[in-house]
Amino acid sequence: MEFISKRSRYVVNPLEEEDAIAEKLRKRGKEVIELNRGDPPVYFKTPKYIIEAYVSALKESKTHYVASAGVYELRNAVAKRYKRMYNIGVDEDSIIVTQGVSEAIQFINAAMINPGEKAILFKPYYPIYIPYLLNYGGIPLFEKYSERLKWNIDTDSLEKTIKKEASKRPKYMLITNPNNPTGTVLDKKVLKEIVELANEYDIFLISDEIYDEIVFNGAKFTSIGELAKGMPHMILNGASKDFDATGFRIGFAIIPENDKKSRQIKHAILQYAQARLSANAPAQYAVAEAMNNVKEHNASIRAMVKEIESRVNFATKLVNESGYLTAIEPNSAFYLFPRINKNILKIKDDREFVKRLLIEQQVQLARGSGFGEEGYVRIVALAEKEILSLAINKINEFCKQHSVKR
Amino acid sequence: MEFISKRSRYVVNPLEEEDAIAEKLRKRGKEVIELNRGDPPVYFKTPKYIIEAYVSALKESKTHYVASAGVYELRNAVAKRYKRMYNIGVDEDSIIVTQGVSEAIQFINAAMINPGEKAILFKPYYPIYIPYLLNYGGIPLFEKYSERLKWNIDTDSLEKTIKKEASKRPKYMLITNPNNPTGTVLDKKVLKEIVELANEYDIFLISDEIYDEIVFNGAKFTSIGELAKGMPHMILNGASKDFDATGFRIGFAIIPENDKKSRQIKHAILQYAQARLSANAPAQYAVAEAMNNVKEHNASIRAMVKEIESRVNFATKLVNESGYLTAIEPNSAFYLFPRINKNILKIKDDREFVKRLLIEQQVQLARGSGFGEEGYVRIVALAEKEILSLAINKINEFCKQHSVKR
Repeated sequence: MEFISKRSRYVVNPLEEEDAIAEKLRKRGKEVIELNRGDPPVYFKTPKYIIEAYVSALKESKTHYVASAGVYELRNAVAKRYKRMYNIGVDEDSIIVTQGVSEAIQFINAAMINPGEKAILFKPYYPIYIPYLLNYGGIPLFEKYSERLKWNIDTDSLEKTIKKEASKRPKYMLITNPNNPTGTVLDKKVLKEIVELANEYDIFLISDEIYDEIVFNGAKFTSIGELAKGMPHMILNGASKDFDATGFRIGFAIIPENDKKSRQIKHAILQYAQARLSANAPAQYAVAEAMNNVKEHNASIRAMVKEIESRVNFATKLVNESGYLTAIEPNSAFYLFPRINKNILKIKDDREFVKRLLIEQQVQLARGSGFGEEGYVRIVALAEKEILSLAINKINEFCKQHSVKR
Repeated sequence: MEFISKRSRYVVNPLEEEDAIAEKLRKRGKEVIELNRGDPPVYFKTPKYIIEAYVSALKESKTHYVASAGVYELRNAVAKRYKRMYNIGVDEDSIIVTQGVSEAIQFINAAMINPGEKAILFKPYYPIYIPYLLNYGGIPLFEKYSERLKWNIDTDSLEKTIKKEASKRPKYMLITNPNNPTGTVLDKKVLKEIVELANEYDIFLISDEIYDEIVFNGAKFTSIGELAKGMPHMILNGASKDFDATGFRIGFAIIPENDKKSRQIKHAILQYAQARLSANAPAQYAVAEAMNNVKEHNASIRAMVKEIESRVNFATKLVNESGYLTAIEPNSAFYLFPRINKNILKIKDDREFVKRLLIEQQVQLARGSGFGEEGYVRIVALAEKEILSLAINKINEFCKQHSVKR
């Protein structure tokens, strides 16, 4: 009998899998440029007004357990934000605060998936969607964000799959919009088709919208909540990206409707939330205050997004110039997801690319196959331009050295 | 096909199940005395030196993702604490920071339990041990903290069970010491026998020691780490109780040894930790500093424990005087777990007792059956004596009204 469970073999976070090598390099005195973790506060300090709100909560001794669903103040702030930004009416009881969106994903799978049941996911996906589904015995049914469609979803293909699976109806369909790792917003037209399919085939629709305010290059974001009115659906979001506070670990799940499925999933998720008592208390009050301070927030997010847009575009241009990698121009989040032009490189796959790049040039990326898409890499374009320039030059040098022409 | 998964039916937190009734009573203008949640900072403010450390971390912008295993500073502080307090040598790589002990319990079950595998738990148990085991398809094998033995474990009975199950060896055995809900420390002699059994029958031993510094009435606490040297085991602890900071959600799992099983479980738990990126960042730095500030900590914990001892003893005396409930005198944590003397009461079971007590007298307790022990209630004795006195008088009045003599 094995001591460790079978399911543990699925639980790998590809964003961190090279950390041990990076650590060894650092111990040998090498400097590693980390472009593997999407962590805004490393580059843009969490705004002062949010820190001050957090400090106030601490000084007011808000350090005990709070409601498992989250403090009322935060749920109320989230409700007001969705009314203000998207004209979505949602009451406080339809919002559950989680320890990051990761915990929400875990609750969703625990609450919905019996062994053998299916869920529709899209490649390239955010990696942790997979282990949380597999760990509860679920089976992913993969559709695609298509590079050909500038990383939009191919809804014709999706419709075929759904029709084929209609009898053993998939439990949920989870989209990420804006998408990580591609850094692209889904078109409103595509979203409308997805909503219609979910409605027609009675599949619970979930949209992870954690990057909803980090949108640029003229793109327009649409929340699923604007289109899915009157049918069961769930929106995931949190403080990590829009409020530049990844280390707070504050996410939330919003289930705006009150149909039977929506009521059932609200109740089930709340039960899982109760089992772990509560999320960090003072951070919740901090995010509530930050979210209500629209003026400060708008100033902060606009400045950050403007700078991110400039860095992402700078990095995309540099990457595409070399010819070794080819990236669709992103319009959201802060990721580039270039294809490795393997026909001109002597490199087996993206895993080898990422590992050797780290060892030879001390630049840490994440491999596309970790997101379900072999042959790509994810580059986080949050660093200052000098660092991005240095890193991309190192990537180009690495490619040159492994070029078939050499 | 049901929309909600079968496993969701197990996920009930008995500490919160009357919250909806309590809420309704409050809306009708009634004041509810809550003696159902064990939440020290509600009654004893989190010490100022800890708040200050937290504020410093925030002002130093420690608000990004941190290492999934926890920040080095905290793992180092935990290692030093265990050396200082228990002479247990443990290195930083053997410690994993979790979002409360709840998350550690979840990781343990995910990492070890294949469907159909067993784990040894003891009644009355901390409620959330059960759903996290059941949710991964595990089967609890129940032994008992015995009221007859002042809530110590009956090791003769345990040995019989283990012998019987030896062929389908249970994956782990989880003890809680000091115990919640009984408020009692396990005898060193009993612990030694448990350690020997775990060693002889090769069962991974886990000790949840979250109340290790809240010990009084002359009792002496022994950490499993002092006795289990050289064999695989795990200690669970955190900042919630000893550092009076439940709302921080900082726990940790310590696996001191480096045998094969210990290495495997460390690796597997780290994988689960990586899937959710990290625990709250600034809280980790705060707890690290607090843990290293031995002088301030000792002053705080001594004052708090002295006051808790006084309140617990006061409550125990009042409860036992009435004759309706009978409590073993606690010597740790802050719980009373009295037996309901049902032969003199016209009350069906503890569930009815707790529900009717709340409705009729507005005192909220937790039912023993929620901890696996029907016929008992758990009373949290953290409140000021006037409130404890008021509440226990209301409990006695309730019992009088439901007495068979009436």
